[in-house]
Amino acid sequence: MWGAGHSLEPFWEKFPIHYKHEVFELLEEYRIGNLKIDKTKKKPVEEKVDFYREEPKRSSRLKVLSQKPFNAESPKELSAENLITPSELHFVRNHMPVPKIDPKSFKLSIMNDNNGKNIELSLEDLETKFESITIPVTIQCSGNKRKYMNEQNPVQGLQWDANAISTALWTGVRLRDVLIHCGFDLNDPRIRHVIFEGLDKDPSGSVYAASIPIEKVKDDNGEVLLAYKMNNQPIPLDNGYPLRALVPGIIGARSVKWLGKIILSEEESQSFWQLNDYKVLPPSVKNLKEADFKKLRAIQESPITSAICQPAEGNVVKRENGKFTAKGYAFSGGGNDVLNVLVSIDNGKNWKQAALHKFDSPLYKSWAWVLWECELDIPQDQDQIEVVCTATDSNQNTQPESISSIWNARGLLNNAWHKVKVKIE
Amino acid sequence: MWGAGHSLEPFWEKFPIHYKHEVFELLEEYRIGNLKIDKTKKKPVEEKVDFYREEPKRSSRLKVLSQKPFNAESPKELSAENLITPSELHFVRNHMPVPKIDPKSFKLSIMNDNNGKNIELSLEDLETKFESITIPVTIQCSGNKRKYMNEQNPVQGLQWDANAISTALWTGVRLRDVLIHCGFDLNDPRIRHVIFEGLDKDPSGSVYAASIPIEKVKDDNGEVLLAYKMNNQPIPLDNGYPLRALVPGIIGARSVKWLGKIILSEEESQSFWQLNDYKVLPPSVKNLKEADFKKLRAIQESPITSAICQPAEGNVVKRENGKFTAKGYAFSGGGNDVLNVLVSIDNGKNWKQAALHKFDSPLYKSWAWVLWECELDIPQDQDQIEVVCTATDSNQNTQPESISSIWNARGLLNNAWHKVKVKIE
Repeated sequence: MWGAGHSLEPFWEKFPIHYKHEVFELLEEYRIGNLKIDKTKKKPVEEKVDFYREEPKRSSRLKVLSQKPFNAESPKELSAENLITPSELHFVRNHMPVPKIDPKSFKLSIMNDNNGKNIELSLEDLETKFESITIPVTIQCSGNKRKYMNEQNPVQGLQWDANAISTALWTGVRLRDVLIHCGFDLNDPRIRHVIFEGLDKDPSGSVYAASIPIEKVKDDNGEVLLAYKMNNQPIPLDNGYPLRALVPGIIGARSVKWLGKIILSEEESQSFWQLNDYKVLPPSVKNLKEADFKKLRAIQESPITSAICQPAEGNVVKRENGKFTAKGYAFSGGGNDVLNVLVSIDNGKNWKQAALHKFDSPLYKSWAWVLWECELDIPQDQDQIEVVCTATDSNQNTQPESISSIWNARGLLNNAWHKVKVKIE
Repeated sequence: MWGAGHSLEPFWEKFPIHYKHEVFELLEEYRIGNLKIDKTKKKPVEEKVDFYREEPKRSSRLKVLSQKPFNAESPKELSAENLITPSELHFVRNHMPVPKIDPKSFKLSIMNDNNGKNIELSLEDLETKFESITIPVTIQCSGNKRKYMNEQNPVQGLQWDANAISTALWTGVRLRDVLIHCGFDLNDPRIRHVIFEGLDKDPSGSVYAASIPIEKVKDDNGEVLLAYKMNNQPIPLDNGYPLRALVPGIIGARSVKWLGKIILSEEESQSFWQLNDYKVLPPSVKNLKEADFKKLRAIQESPITSAICQPAEGNVVKRENGKFTAKGYAFSGGGNDVLNVLVSIDNGKNWKQAALHKFDSPLYKSWAWVLWECELDIPQDQDQIEVVCTATDSNQNTQPESISSIWNARGLLNNAWHKVKVKIE
């Protein structure tokens, strides 16, 4: 689409992730003929530019899913032990190259689409003119656990295991405070959405963008932040330096990194990622070509979910100990607290309650995951067991047992019971 | 407990629902001996008073579960067709006799537990001094569909089928407006809960009571009402005449009927129904005697749920038509909208999307159910099919497939897939 009428090569170089079988197969259908190149008229070969030549250095402990753009999970074992993920081990979901931004000349632009009102703020303005808060927030990619959905029936997207989710202490100023201070009228009924535009660009100059409903920003219980620190340090390059939107309780795709512009608008963002992606298709739509994205609401809050991080699939536990300990995380969007995590080794016939470790958080403001831990008896007569977990949140919502009713062609929001097979020796 | 040191008879007369096998069995364990009555000293027999002698007349179309106190479901077929339930067919959940209240002398008392501030308002004050709003609100008993949970493993409580849920147009004033107008300081950190006391009493004079967190009342998106009209008429006696609390998105138990008193408090209501009932026990607790209610949070918001109302269990559909139509409702608490209802006749292998009929409602303020309708093909080779439905809400939460992970000894919040067997002829 972006290439319509133009050469596809620049996109191809920027998104090498598309050099794969499924994409060639898809494009083959649209072949309408072959161009015959007149070699006598051939232009000199332009030097190939690697759009990703200035990417930051990354920890070798990240589980890389794609290099260009960079996408990587947090190490699984971390999420069993650490309420706070160290910044360099936070999962990374980039859509394009990491932009280089000079913090001294950086200006955040905020505008009201309805009346053209436009203001600019420097980082110093943000850091000095408003009350800053520091809160633990879990960010989760809505594709987390897509791998398991793909096993049921193929889905499109990065094959995330269960660790496209991490938690950091984020410091920033409330977007509501900034908007009110700058004289934007949040009760203007024409302001229905808040659009965030990143400074990360594709070769045509289009930036990553997404939006959230204005209600989220106005909400007394909401804490939509303009964040400039992660774990009490400047935000690392991969996580949005020098400024990012941070929308607690909402899928990661709306917490736009390298934030450059905010637009108050009657319409939601018209970006691909808002309108034609990050939406849950019904399970009857098996192929994205049949998808009518217009009819669907863009995902915002995410449902209750949980995962087993220890032991990992295929790990061995010793029979002689008689017991072993399973550990993992549980998280619910929308500020909902996790009330309960249940663990089973007989596929849900019997459940044991896990102990929970969590941050203290005010009612309706639980923006971070809980970690859980559960000691289980090793059965006498099996040499392999499957550990299963499921969680309940403060709305009393629980997870679906199977993927059956939640399977969707984009592989989003897989919150079915997580299962891990363990060997006993 | 209530009877400690006193005669149990008055309670027995008031709650004849307890004249049943399980209760006698339970009490048998606590027998410490038999009183020998000296017949010469016997007091004259007091005339038995029927505490329920002045109950209102009720529609014969209600499906009665208990007469004293009166508990009845709305007719199932209604919930397939009517977004608004007629007042006389709204489900009824009474805990005690319906109190007789004179609207002319009626005063609502509101007090701040922390400083003793106390005010009184007449019905006329409420109806004339504040902005009134009329909104469609679904009230659901948290025991709705308990019958199906009981089939899995016995649970305590009224054996509700799927229609302890109804929707009416409720008119009232916002509790927040009233509290602010009357000079209560909602930002006082000592005010953490809002306690509602009814005027319905047990023989000892204790009233029905429940509470909600103050956040619900302060919430910009919240619409906690003091309601005095139902479907544009005075509220019927069974539904709380002349005034009731109405807490949209929260289980029915907190929308206290025959409201007499509101207390702003640091503690939640100390009533039995708040502290020792209406809480979801973990599935490992098979018996209420093992329950540690103190460790559990009182249920407030309810999870996503749905039900099939037509055809009903055992109904016959004609093969010659080739198709039949299933209908029902779906509802989610907390102001969450229902996005999608899926229907299957092969236990979830394949799903069809249902058409939805719903009220227009602002974002985060979907306080009412949606009705759904789905045309299904009759399979050639079966003379019986099972229809299954499940729904998704705007937090992308879905329903659990089975009762396995949500079973609880009080039989509350059964939101597992609803199933109905239909004969084909």
